[in-house]
Amino acid sequence: MAEHGVDVLCCSVGADLPYLTGYTAMPLERLTMLVLPAEGDARLVVPRLEVPRVEPRPGLFEVVPWDETDDPVAITARIVGSAARTVAIGDHTWARFVIDLQHALPGVRFRRGSEVTGPVRMVKDDEEVAALRRAAEAVDAIAGEMRDRPFAGRTELEVHRELVDRMIAHGHERANFAIVAAGAHAASPHHEPSPARVIREGDVVLCDFGGTRDGYCSDITRMFHVGEPDPEVTETYAVLVEAQETAVRAAVVGASCASVDAAARTVIAAAGLGDRFIHRVGHGIGTEAHEDPYLVAGNERPLAPGHAFSVEPGIYLPGRFGLRLEDIVVATAAGPRRLNTAPRDLAVVG
Amino acid sequence: MAEHGVDVLCCSVGADLPYLTGYTAMPLERLTMLVLPAEGDARLVVPRLEVPRVEPRPGLFEVVPWDETDDPVAITARIVGSAARTVAIGDHTWARFVIDLQHALPGVRFRRGSEVTGPVRMVKDDEEVAALRRAAEAVDAIAGEMRDRPFAGRTELEVHRELVDRMIAHGHERANFAIVAAGAHAASPHHEPSPARVIREGDVVLCDFGGTRDGYCSDITRMFHVGEPDPEVTETYAVLVEAQETAVRAAVVGASCASVDAAARTVIAAAGLGDRFIHRVGHGIGTEAHEDPYLVAGNERPLAPGHAFSVEPGIYLPGRFGLRLEDIVVATAAGPRRLNTAPRDLAVVG
Repeated sequence: MAEHGVDVLCCSVGADLPYLTGYTAMPLERLTMLVLPAEGDARLVVPRLEVPRVEPRPGLFEVVPWDETDDPVAITARIVGSAARTVAIGDHTWARFVIDLQHALPGVRFRRGSEVTGPVRMVKDDEEVAALRRAAEAVDAIAGEMRDRPFAGRTELEVHRELVDRMIAHGHERANFAIVAAGAHAASPHHEPSPARVIREGDVVLCDFGGTRDGYCSDITRMFHVGEPDPEVTETYAVLVEAQETAVRAAVVGASCASVDAAARTVIAAAGLGDRFIHRVGHGIGTEAHEDPYLVAGNERPLAPGHAFSVEPGIYLPGRFGLRLEDIVVATAAGPRRLNTAPRDLAVVG
Repeated sequence: MAEHGVDVLCCSVGADLPYLTGYTAMPLERLTMLVLPAEGDARLVVPRLEVPRVEPRPGLFEVVPWDETDDPVAITARIVGSAARTVAIGDHTWARFVIDLQHALPGVRFRRGSEVTGPVRMVKDDEEVAALRRAAEAVDAIAGEMRDRPFAGRTELEVHRELVDRMIAHGHERANFAIVAAGAHAASPHHEPSPARVIREGDVVLCDFGGTRDGYCSDITRMFHVGEPDPEVTETYAVLVEAQETAVRAAVVGASCASVDAAARTVIAAAGLGDRFIHRVGHGIGTEAHEDPYLVAGNERPLAPGHAFSVEPGIYLPGRFGLRLEDIVVATAAGPRRLNTAPRDLAVVG
């Protein structure tokens, strides 16, 4: 905080609060706010009816309960104090609380909380990498199980629900998402699984799913094909596999985030498909499904040991089909290390 | 907006955007923002890879896609324009976007979006009341089914999962929460269901659950007791039932929100338990689980026809047990109308 010129860090909903304290705020209209000054003790402003949810951490923070007719923003502002010049506020804090707090603290400059917490959360220690690996192993197992499951005749939504159930069965406390996109739907990177679209012979099926296991996130994309794929799909998929492999190999300590994105893009462009890869190659992952560092053109941040991120190039042919392949990778002094080890071929299913 | 002196309304994640457009933003780091000026056309700034998710609504808004290396905040600021003096921004918009937008629009005053949208969303028309009633009927059915289910020997988390599954089975597209709190845990109003706490003979079990069905929310609390309750529980529960009934009857058009809260509080205080009712009596409900109007001391807003809200007094005895009873009620010209009709007695279960 001193390095960033921040006097007080305020954390509400979002991943910063559990990262720093182990406590997760309820995402409701009753404000929970950790007030952490650069000097002095931290306080957790919390609705009195949620105090029983807070595990006391006497050395870490003092609990400041507020009652139903109190003004929690005024209480927070009082704790922040008039001496604060710059407050960093958690990136996901609700706008209404930011605006109310700005009115209560008129002279104060507000900045993104992630300016302070991003660089800290980005570098995973051994225990965090182990947690990410356990989450990766769980979704790897599911990717393997799905190779023996029927796809034809089921809707995207049915397969989505199966993925959600399997994530819970494999030890996730929460499923965060499960994209199931068949045929032309796979050309929409963030497609919503449809209750109407029945998967059929000849479909490619994109499955991109992840959850939270022991506080850390999983995220994997694997491709399935109902029956034997035609040569165009096979050839396009081969380009994708090479692009992903090339990007993973480029993810060495010291390389820029942008260079990893460029590595995948170069391979896909060489195959004449450059304009079909319409998103960045990856995002950081940890206690949040998407966090720093983002592997995107323009981000010149160099990779450091302990950075964990997805490498997930895609090729999307609107109206026809789409393909994506994704693993979680950790940058280490010994080179990039994939946490996901599930087979990366185009699985032929029934 | 003219009435509130707002030049532009900006909506991102949260319930305002789907309420106004039918489109729900993904809660991710790629910004989606509806820019709706008081005069002129609306535009939806959306990541290009999510454009296929947007159902085109030509008369309603124009889609403005942004690419991975664009700055969506700069694009939003340009659309808002330099002529805007006051921008209302959706209550749940992420702080990072509020702060970035404030930097991009230095002269502009920012206010809560709910100042504009709250009064509109608060009043439900007949179609919305019908949707709330269908959601209420679904959880009423579940409350009925649970009376015949075993509780003893199962963990809170197992019963929680059953409630979640039943909400989906009864047509909810999403389960929003399912509090299951046994014995002393029920004295914590927002208790997290425990994987370790096994429900046993003699426990009161509080079940407070709700989800979203066809876009509108359900929310109900019913109490179960494993075996016959002792007289103290029975007597305390009778106070609660009377408090809830009194508050529902007080929820007539023209009565203040605060007076409904006071009606329940008076009954509980008369029984000598005033300090055991530690939260407001209710919250509005609609496309969001909690929204305006809040039934809390200090809120002098008069109820109007179409206001829909929970009435849910509680009595909490720390270390011992807790009780809550909740229905959704709509204020109408013909008087308060409960949408939930599941039996309100303390259900004895095995």
